[in-house]
Amino acid sequence: MMNDAPRFAVVLSGCGVYDGSEIHEAVSLLLAIDRHGGHYQCFAPNTWQARTIDHFTGESTAVAGDADNRNVLAESARIARGNILDLREFKAANFDAVVFPGGFGAALNLSNFAQKGAACEVNEEVRRVIEESYAAKIVVGAMCIAPVVVARVLGKHKVTVTIGTDKDTAAGIAKMGAVHQNCLVDEACVDVKNRIVTTPAYMSAKSIGQVFHGAEVLVNEIFDLI
Amino acid sequence: MMNDAPRFAVVLSGCGVYDGSEIHEAVSLLLAIDRHGGHYQCFAPNTWQARTIDHFTGESTAVAGDADNRNVLAESARIARGNILDLREFKAANFDAVVFPGGFGAALNLSNFAQKGAACEVNEEVRRVIEESYAAKIVVGAMCIAPVVVARVLGKHKVTVTIGTDKDTAAGIAKMGAVHQNCLVDEACVDVKNRIVTTPAYMSAKSIGQVFHGAEVLVNEIFDLI
Repeated sequence: MMNDAPRFAVVLSGCGVYDGSEIHEAVSLLLAIDRHGGHYQCFAPNTWQARTIDHFTGESTAVAGDADNRNVLAESARIARGNILDLREFKAANFDAVVFPGGFGAALNLSNFAQKGAACEVNEEVRRVIEESYAAKIVVGAMCIAPVVVARVLGKHKVTVTIGTDKDTAAGIAKMGAVHQNCLVDEACVDVKNRIVTTPAYMSAKSIGQVFHGAEVLVNEIFDLI
Repeated sequence: MMNDAPRFAVVLSGCGVYDGSEIHEAVSLLLAIDRHGGHYQCFAPNTWQARTIDHFTGESTAVAGDADNRNVLAESARIARGNILDLREFKAANFDAVVFPGGFGAALNLSNFAQKGAACEVNEEVRRVIEESYAAKIVVGAMCIAPVVVARVLGKHKVTVTIGTDKDTAAGIAKMGAVHQNCLVDEACVDVKNRIVTTPAYMSAKSIGQVFHGAEVLVNEIFDLI
């Protein structure tokens, strides 16, 4: 089955909503892929987090350059149970889809959207992965806030994505040249021409059940495109 | 709905299979509770991890006493998206069930089973929570390796639990006075008299889908007991 199963690359950005990948979204995505009969391989950039947040107190405990700041690949490996590769090893030819879960890590570690908004820079490996995937016509998926990273790289192609209904973030996406489409938490936005699928997850979700449902819809739409 | 919904306390032990809660198990449990219409509140002991493991390299980066070692409550808060309480605030009277996901954290932080086996000590707040829950007749649930903690505290009541089919761990449980029952990954072991439900999860599971299925069976059995 594994050989015929659609192959998903999942790109993580750390481990925890405030400084990395949102854990419920990442796990819901892996679970949805597995339940649909797909195969996944996790990746993360081998870079330092923009910051490390104590998720109990909500306070910053370290920023880039501090000795006790955390590494994106090492933290992402927690979600992947150690089965993860440096994003440098990603080749679009080996996959049918690449998906980015959300969490502040997408706006802090994969890009600096949290600081710079529509003018943000994108981590160079992340940019390479998105451009290579688009050129190879494999499906690019993103959840929650992660569609801003896709919009930043592929805005020149006028791709359509959603981050739910948040007006400020949607305006930022439009500034990048991409098209924002409002979308409910139990839906996915499908750009058939550009092979891009996005869903709001915790940008709109009120429960983990809604997040998982959105992940299932996302994966189902990706299977349809594949 | 929230007021009538069964109330679950979920006790975490960190964030990551090698030094804390196994993330897929913890998230699968929260998702299963939510999908069954239950309500959950996460807890964790406010204590230091026995060790901190780099989940990419597999190497230990800190042990108890080191300045860069991590706190169980702060790390568990990542899985709970910050919505977590110190285990000292747990009162059995406020819940219908208390469940412990697995991961090495159960054998390193909630107890020292990893070092001492059947003769292990249990974190004093964890012991208090299990004893209080048993006395109050709320359901006690555990996944993966976490049933050893329940067996250590409640072995004197000859409780029946499962950790799947691993003979060494099963022998350790028997030494604690508890009864071990072999159980497949898609089943749960139900001790009706003592109101204890356990399932093997990653002690036997080969995929995240199997873990989630086991979590659903566990939650379903707990709903039946409630």
